Amino acid sequence: MLTVNLDRLMADLEAFSAIGGDGQGGVTRLAFTPADQSARRLFQDKLAAAGLRVRVDAIGNVFGRRGGRETALPPVLLGSHMDSAPNGGRFDGPLGVLSALEVVRMLDDARAETRRPVEVACFAAEESSRFGSGTLGSKAVVGKLKPDMLDRLRDPEGRTLAEVLQECGLLPDRLPEVRRRPGEYHAYLELHLEQGAVLEHAGIPIGLVTGIAAPTRFHVTYTGRADHSGATPMGLRRDALVAGAELVLSVRRIVLAHGSPTSVGTVGVLRVQPGAMNVIPGQASLGIDLRDIDADAKSRIAKKVQAAARRIARKWKLDVSVETLTDESPVPLSERVRQVSAAACQACGIPFQELPSGAGHDAMYIAEIAETGMIFVRCREGISHNPAEFVEPQDIAAGAAVLAETALRLAEE
Amino acid sequence: MLTVNLDRLMADLEAFSAIGGDGQGGVTRLAFTPADQSARRLFQDKLAAAGLRVRVDAIGNVFGRRGGRETALPPVLLGSHMDSAPNGGRFDGPLGVLSALEVVRMLDDARAETRRPVEVACFAAEESSRFGSGTLGSKAVVGKLKPDMLDRLRDPEGRTLAEVLQECGLLPDRLPEVRRRPGEYHAYLELHLEQGAVLEHAGIPIGLVTGIAAPTRFHVTYTGRADHSGATPMGLRRDALVAGAELVLSVRRIVLAHGSPTSVGTVGVLRVQPGAMNVIPGQASLGIDLRDIDADAKSRIAKKVQAAARRIARKWKLDVSVETLTDESPVPLSERVRQVSAAACQACGIPFQELPSGAGHDAMYIAEIAETGMIFVRCREGISHNPAEFVEPQDIAAGAAVLAETALRLAEE
Repeated sequence: MLTVNLDRLMADLEAFSAIGGDGQGGVTRLAFTPADQSARRLFQDKLAAAGLRVRVDAIGNVFGRRGGRETALPPVLLGSHMDSAPNGGRFDGPLGVLSALEVVRMLDDARAETRRPVEVACFAAEESSRFGSGTLGSKAVVGKLKPDMLDRLRDPEGRTLAEVLQECGLLPDRLPEVRRRPGEYHAYLELHLEQGAVLEHAGIPIGLVTGIAAPTRFHVTYTGRADHSGATPMGLRRDALVAGAELVLSVRRIVLAHGSPTSVGTVGVLRVQPGAMNVIPGQASLGIDLRDIDADAKSRIAKKVQAAARRIARKWKLDVSVETLTDESPVPLSERVRQVSAAACQACGIPFQELPSGAGHDAMYIAEIAETGMIFVRCREGISHNPAEFVEPQDIAAGAAVLAETALRLAEE
Repeated sequence: MLTVNLDRLMADLEAFSAIGGDGQGGVTRLAFTPADQSARRLFQDKLAAAGLRVRVDAIGNVFGRRGGRETALPPVLLGSHMDSAPNGGRFDGPLGVLSALEVVRMLDDARAETRRPVEVACFAAEESSRFGSGTLGSKAVVGKLKPDMLDRLRDPEGRTLAEVLQECGLLPDRLPEVRRRPGEYHAYLELHLEQGAVLEHAGIPIGLVTGIAAPTRFHVTYTGRADHSGATPMGLRRDALVAGAELVLSVRRIVLAHGSPTSVGTVGVLRVQPGAMNVIPGQASLGIDLRDIDADAKSRIAKKVQAAARRIARKWKLDVSVETLTDESPVPLSERVRQVSAAACQACGIPFQELPSGAGHDAMYIAEIAETGMIFVRCREGISHNPAEFVEPQDIAAGAAVLAETALRLAEE
């Protein structure tokens, strides 16, 4: 049985939480910012210090490889991401990446040789906070980050993904080389905090994920007229924010009335132009995020939200644009890998349950080229993307143990 | 009869529209920014070139004085402002300031001596876009800009008014010296574009303002919890934007149901934190602007908006703060000055009508120390605070003629 060195893992988590950290537990480490670059460089150093062969691909994904007895066999891949949402927590991403690193150190501690190589991955730009679209690194690995997206995706300052990658010394022109084919990896395992409160409510530390609810996202912009707030009678206004406010409430209403029990809908972005006390808003832009593991329900509410966006524009006599940023299908994960993890939990004496994932993860792309499993670790009050994000150390130990035991079993196959 | 040199006045308007201009008619010249500073420096040069004695006070108000036959008598003051809203128009402010300059040049052209001196003023920071509170220069002149506001008012980057003034080489410590007492000026006249569509609908170029609807402004902040948008069921959310959206719609409903026919209410600012697609808004901040020339109606809707803000917080189980930024009383203007302007219109053969002002102006403060009149000039479609703001040249000529004729009559009193 492999043994987690919890002090070592906690020290790593602590070290990474300082990069882009606010000193209070919160982290702002948006994709490809200096903080994110620092974190990924430190991770490369740690991989090298653990004796792994390190590789950074053209889009910034970092890999470290531990050899196996049969070194030509497809390896078992373990990973997650290092970038964060703005003012996010310190576990979302790093917990999986650093637990993966811990697994190879546990194998070394035990002087364990595995049949297959074991590879550790830190995928780039998993959060969508900077470019409005996430899991960019894992999309690139499976060929789903198309070359035109390099110029089309822009950050809030208007810089394209290609420009940002170049500034980081990465090689957007060599995107095709990032791609890996089905069969190149034997399996992929991602450990992540739950980001929901299902495990906490059940009193269970570990969840084995059945499938991932992928997002459908729209960008809706209402355009009216920016008039003086004092001198324009109510009846003559073309106030874009009034329409935006109606749509915020409609999204919630549609999800509750027409979604499945697992449907969620969020307006996380609302920008008003020009945004001054004495000017009627001439423009309001909304970012809408819909998710479900039930593909039919998600498609139903997406259609209704789009229809509502247009109906509200007609009602207020505004111009509207509705742009689909992302429309992804829910992804079922490997039942076979889940059974291996379940056996690992039983062997370690760690309670677990199966559950779906409401959040998207790199696993939903890597699942296209390798049998994929996800291990969820209980998080306090389901809080994530927030400085209050917290995982109990004993649950971290439980997660790393299940990850290590699952990886060991898969690597012996 | 004095004669407007329209080419000269249009050339001035053109020159100032280039400072902070977007080349398409729009202007962004927020108070005390480099563009605003440049505009006020150019204006000082133009005052000096017109032979006026120039003075800049501690808060950045610019004055130019043309002597009279009885140079110790209180002068007639003509003025407005040079700063703009973000992406605003080129007439709001400069039309009044440059028409005032044109008046003294018209007096010079006619070799007219007036009994009283005539003074031209450019008041600082009339727009509230930068500090959330406007008419700062004219407030200072009447002693209503209190020293504590220098440190309390902050721009969106968090810099205090005092810091910004110092960076501009101004002297916030000498604020008390800016103050002028009742009787120091014989009268104040402000020419401004209407910023509404009343004159255009009536087919009349000139409006004489009966009173000014001052704003009541609130800053409302809802605080909930920033959770992951995919993993937080609808029933467990504390989404601050849903409450903000309800309040946007409530403001409109309250104004229409409980206001007077002249009540208006606007949410011009709505900021969402953290503002990412994959995070439920933990905080939403709204800037609310209510106006009326009917003081009772304004107070009634202000109370209802505050109550609604708190009721919505209770409904969604959010924290709320409601801060009153400004609560000003509507200001009646001088009937006597209006009669002088009406006689001036008749002498010039220019059609006019009386009307209230929905927007606030420096005139509402200067009215505390001098008999005050405002002359409105028709603007196209009532559009203001917008690059499409437009005044026909013949209406500009009409406005300058009425301003000059009124000033001449008052300066002979």
